[in-house]
Amino acid sequence: MEKMLATVFHGENNIQVEEVPRPHAGPGEAVIKITLTTICGTDLHIVRGEYPVKPGLIIGHEPVGVIEELGAGITGYKVGERVLVGAITPCGQCRACLSGQHSQCGHGGEGLEALGGWRFGNTINGAQAEYLLVPSAQANMAKIPDDLTDEQVVLLADIASTGFGGAESGQIRIGDTVVVFAQGPIGLCATAGAKLMGASLIIGVDGDDNRLKMSRRMGADVVLDFRYTDVVSEIKRLTGGGADVTIEALGTQPTFENALRSLRPGGTLSSLGVYSGKLQMPYDAFSAGLGDNKIVMTLCPGGKERMRRMMSMVQSGRFDPTPLLTHTFSLQEIQKGYDIFGSRADNVLKVAIKP
Amino acid sequence: MEKMLATVFHGENNIQVEEVPRPHAGPGEAVIKITLTTICGTDLHIVRGEYPVKPGLIIGHEPVGVIEELGAGITGYKVGERVLVGAITPCGQCRACLSGQHSQCGHGGEGLEALGGWRFGNTINGAQAEYLLVPSAQANMAKIPDDLTDEQVVLLADIASTGFGGAESGQIRIGDTVVVFAQGPIGLCATAGAKLMGASLIIGVDGDDNRLKMSRRMGADVVLDFRYTDVVSEIKRLTGGGADVTIEALGTQPTFENALRSLRPGGTLSSLGVYSGKLQMPYDAFSAGLGDNKIVMTLCPGGKERMRRMMSMVQSGRFDPTPLLTHTFSLQEIQKGYDIFGSRADNVLKVAIKP
Amino acid sequence: MEKMLATVFHGENNIQVEEVPRPHAGPGEAVIKITLTTICGTDLHIVRGEYPVKPGLIIGHEPVGVIEELGAGITGYKVGERVLVGAITPCGQCRACLSGQHSQCGHGGEGLEALGGWRFGNTINGAQAEYLLVPSAQANMAKIPDDLTDEQVVLLADIASTGFGGAESGQIRIGDTVVVFAQGPIGLCATAGAKLMGASLIIGVDGDDNRLKMSRRMGADVVLDFRYTDVVSEIKRLTGGGADVTIEALGTQPTFENALRSLRPGGTLSSLGVYSGKLQMPYDAFSAGLGDNKIVMTLCPGGKERMRRMMSMVQSGRFDPTPLLTHTFSLQEIQKGYDIFGSRADNVLKVAIKP
Amino acid sequence: MEKMLATVFHGENNIQVEEVPRPHAGPGEAVIKITLTTICGTDLHIVRGEYPVKPGLIIGHEPVGVIEELGAGITGYKVGERVLVGAITPCGQCRACLSGQHSQCGHGGEGLEALGGWRFGNTINGAQAEYLLVPSAQANMAKIPDDLTDEQVVLLADIASTGFGGAESGQIRIGDTVVVFAQGPIGLCATAGAKLMGASLIIGVDGDDNRLKMSRRMGADVVLDFRYTDVVSEIKRLTGGGADVTIEALGTQPTFENALRSLRPGGTLSSLGVYSGKLQMPYDAFSAGLGDNKIVMTLCPGGKERMRRMMSMVQSGRFDPTPLLTHTFSLQEIQKGYDIFGSRADNVLKVAIKP
Repeated sequence: MEKMLATVFHGENNIQVEEVPRPHAGPGEAVIKITLTTICGTDLHIVRGEYPVKPGLIIGHEPVGVIEELGAGITGYKVGERVLVGAITPCGQCRACLSGQHSQCGHGGEGLEALGGWRFGNTINGAQAEYLLVPSAQANMAKIPDDLTDEQVVLLADIASTGFGGAESGQIRIGDTVVVFAQGPIGLCATAGAKLMGASLIIGVDGDDNRLKMSRRMGADVVLDFRYTDVVSEIKRLTGGGADVTIEALGTQPTFENALRSLRPGGTLSSLGVYSGKLQMPYDAFSAGLGDNKIVMTLCPGGKERMRRMMSMVQSGRFDPTPLLTHTFSLQEIQKGYDIFGSRADNVLKVAIKP
Repeated sequence: MEKMLATVFHGENNIQVEEVPRPHAGPGEAVIKITLTTICGTDLHIVRGEYPVKPGLIIGHEPVGVIEELGAGITGYKVGERVLVGAITPCGQCRACLSGQHSQCGHGGEGLEALGGWRFGNTINGAQAEYLLVPSAQANMAKIPDDLTDEQVVLLADIASTGFGGAESGQIRIGDTVVVFAQGPIGLCATAGAKLMGASLIIGVDGDDNRLKMSRRMGADVVLDFRYTDVVSEIKRLTGGGADVTIEALGTQPTFENALRSLRPGGTLSSLGVYSGKLQMPYDAFSAGLGDNKIVMTLCPGGKERMRRMMSMVQSGRFDPTPLLTHTFSLQEIQKGYDIFGSRADNVLKVAIKP
Repeated sequence: MEKMLATVFHGENNIQVEEVPRPHAGPGEAVIKITLTTICGTDLHIVRGEYPVKPGLIIGHEPVGVIEELGAGITGYKVGERVLVGAITPCGQCRACLSGQHSQCGHGGEGLEALGGWRFGNTINGAQAEYLLVPSAQANMAKIPDDLTDEQVVLLADIASTGFGGAESGQIRIGDTVVVFAQGPIGLCATAGAKLMGASLIIGVDGDDNRLKMSRRMGADVVLDFRYTDVVSEIKRLTGGGADVTIEALGTQPTFENALRSLRPGGTLSSLGVYSGKLQMPYDAFSAGLGDNKIVMTLCPGGKERMRRMMSMVQSGRFDPTPLLTHTFSLQEIQKGYDIFGSRADNVLKVAIKP
Repeated sequence: MEKMLATVFHGENNIQVEEVPRPHAGPGEAVIKITLTTICGTDLHIVRGEYPVKPGLIIGHEPVGVIEELGAGITGYKVGERVLVGAITPCGQCRACLSGQHSQCGHGGEGLEALGGWRFGNTINGAQAEYLLVPSAQANMAKIPDDLTDEQVVLLADIASTGFGGAESGQIRIGDTVVVFAQGPIGLCATAGAKLMGASLIIGVDGDDNRLKMSRRMGADVVLDFRYTDVVSEIKRLTGGGADVTIEALGTQPTFENALRSLRPGGTLSSLGVYSGKLQMPYDAFSAGLGDNKIVMTLCPGGKERMRRMMSMVQSGRFDPTPLLTHTFSLQEIQKGYDIFGSRADNVLKVAIKP
């Protein structure tokens, strides 16, 4: 049986790069040979035991690769083509997908499954490996234009699609004021997304000098350091009473609550964070429910059409994600990547892995 | 100086029907002679000291009347015409109004004011009186068609507009499953609104036999009594995994939390309640923020065009609010009305007041 | 080789019920045994040579049946289950489908194809036969609840989905005035859809007594006979200046032009008709382009989730399509069905075919 | 009686700069002293007798000025403040305005009036004068920030608001391909608007070298000269089958028809042009009505909040309209401005007038 190298989760703080069987493609599936992937904040949660997955699972969910095998029923692709696959892999054919909610995919059925579109490195084997089995491959393999490198597209699979998704779900309009709370990789992409949608004023909030600097580079007009600034009152001053849209890109009580308190009456909070425990909404933070506010939550949009659109923005020069890719390691050295990424050492933003 | 009778708030649990000066119309204003008004749940909060207003204020905000005076600049109206005025009186000319958020009206200016459209019995004198000064009268007086009685339209000013607004903000589509939590006057109107928008299954939730019976009359296909039923699991069973839209019509932790837990992935919670204290959102109730859910909040839509549209639904026989008007008192007897309404005695739903 | 009976198009005014090979299911496909289908106006166009299809094609596109074969990769279904398949069969996995435009399906690819979702009886064999090959079966077979008969669901496949689609694309809101031009099967369903979405006044227009009578039954408040009435001026009178939404359900110059002329400033024309030749838009009919009007066009929405939703409306008693099914013939007698349907004899609305 | 200089229309090709009475402010009105205004293409139509207005009318509708008089009921403004007033002056208080369709304003009433929001130089005296009476002044005077010059804001009143409106009505999304037909002042602003909303590819079409050059400067990635190029087929090639959104910015049969033919299935045509005569829609240009296309038409959005938002885009450096302001004349010399603008001499784009 053919083997491949893969990053396998064996329990809390225990991942190993080891030999495992190579996958093969059944009907509607494909196998790609990974040429570039990354480590995501969610992978850290998994490794630390904060998000439960089954021991034995290969982790990772941001794959760029070359088609190796095509299962029955897949048409229009050839072995050897270079493809980007989103972190979320909707089937396109279930109740949720046919309703336009591809991230909540029910895998062909009429049932409902929260987060069902996130499968790689969660419920099926993921991308930190030499080969990857792609489910619903017809819906999920986006051909990469020749003029784009792997490095230019790998961050589109998750963080850029999520970040832009936060701006899109906030329905930012020309002339809106927007605040993005937390300037990690997703927040930075949300900042870029707000700029692309025509915000007139973008405020980036974080407590890390390097990230605030990158925030400006990604489109923020003003950056606020929460270590030294009363963020909510400064936002109210800058926006003349509250922002049209605030984007939460971390998943904590303070960022969520500040995002709520920074809204103008009628404003929208677009939430991207992953929360734990009991989130509090003090009644005075949202006008006791009478402020005509909206809270919208977005999981990363996926599917090949989303990836095609994201790549078109890089091709046209509208968006350049490469400054966020600060480090690269081989698959064998992936533990080093986890160490640097986990400790936020060396001004790391995103770590790429090259099998 | 001319006098009139009015219900004046003098402090906690202290309202008096007493003589006060009659108002007169300045530029852009009008005075109407009240022919019918009501007591609202919000008035109860005010009288009990739970919502602060200034002592000396006339309360009430659901006015039907006859035009008595027209200020400078008001055109197209005549003294003697019968009009309905919404509980919310947008100016139409400020930043919020020109952005379409009339309930958050800033009274002509470029500033932002939460709930700014709610003025009657809150920041200016209200409707439980013989005469009422109407601000921004050009935008707020809706002529009542001859074939409609005062009783048919008075509930459109607030509860029906709010209830329908909850259904509308939920963006209910043909074939949606909808749950309405709490079947008080506003929840009952939200139930009727869900029916009007094409929901395929409407579930009304309450713990009061009379209200559950009225819920069926207003359009619920199924009613659930929270005293005897595990509401969330029954909703999941009836909807095949969660409702498309849930409407919260009370403003408490249990109703809000259940409304969140009853959603399908990607579903929308439309909130009408007035909350106090710290509202909790347990992370497991909303997929840790990753379920593509929306929470939308709505204050009562107002303005003369809204009132015209609401009246057109009564005229065409699509909606009949009169079953909700269970009691009527004169202005002098208004304390009796407050007593019955406050104690929920005699299967009361809404109390009308006739000056 | 197994054979089956089918209605084959052989050229202008030449269809034959004859023996042809039975289809079998490849990967991603299924075969159903047809238990009920219909004749559609589009089939008439095909038979008359007005819409070109290849000779040798089996026509028809409104199938109800029982699963006979399941191809590789289809999950969650069993042979013998009763299913409804929409007239439009999106793949769910192409560029158009992943963008939410399932009717313009590109069959898995990244290309664009107008009307690509309409395949049955157009580009592949259709439903007027004993057996039907269903493409992208995972996305298109909707299980029929036990409490619904074939007769209750067969019209949902096309005309009801199209008619409701016209109301939905018009974004009808509670309190809107709506006019539906032409009260054939699709126009009648658009009328029902307008009622379901909360229109306050629905005006049905036609020139056939039987259809005007059915229009009232389906929800019209007022019907106008264009033979005796100046339709546009009467609509302007009834709506106080123009309708919020007009629905065109025929595809001719007079109905389109009247639908445009009947709009209020800012109103929406929702077009369902199939046009030929040069459609004219006189500049005075749409305020020279400055009236903030919209024209939206809708092909029939398909896919199993659409069918599930449509069936839920019948199950809940909100919508009953059976009065539209006026005649039934066996497959062998299908020519009789075409004759009656084509000549509009015997107050025919829709003709069912039972293989 | 005080006099002022004004440009008065006296009949076809006959305008005179002459002395007329100065206006004074009634309730709800204001008078501003004009400091900068412009000549618009619509003014040319009026002067040439192609658009009918009453002889004796002062024309012009793009005013920047200083408040001279405030009528009864106007609050929050002071004489001497510098303000921008949109070309469209909604009242904010009529049926259309309260429905969010401010350009179709009915001036306070419940009636409907196409283009009712366009009053200056159409139904009331306009801006090519020393003083201007502003109706519904509370809704229409936007204070100009100190850091913006008159020249930076004057084009926001009409052409930039209209051009951006075309992009907004097209609901351009991140990654869309957009074509703008005609690169006159409005088309150029639509091009800039498409860029601001995140289009990945913008194609500008015109037949004038100078305008094509400016098109690139305003954001077009590709420009097509219709004199030398088969525009539709080149667009199909560049977009891989048709554009997501096409914007028509002229008002002629060829530009409209090409905009329709250049759409992908499901695409949107956003129309800004003013049409005359019978516009033709060949059925093959829009898939016989079955392509799920939309046609949306937009008159210039107005009101002080729109103007505030437009100015915020200039302040933040997102948009610079000044390259479009190619010529300036005094009010006395306005005939020269009309001559140059009307003959398109000297690479003119927009002409400013300084009273």
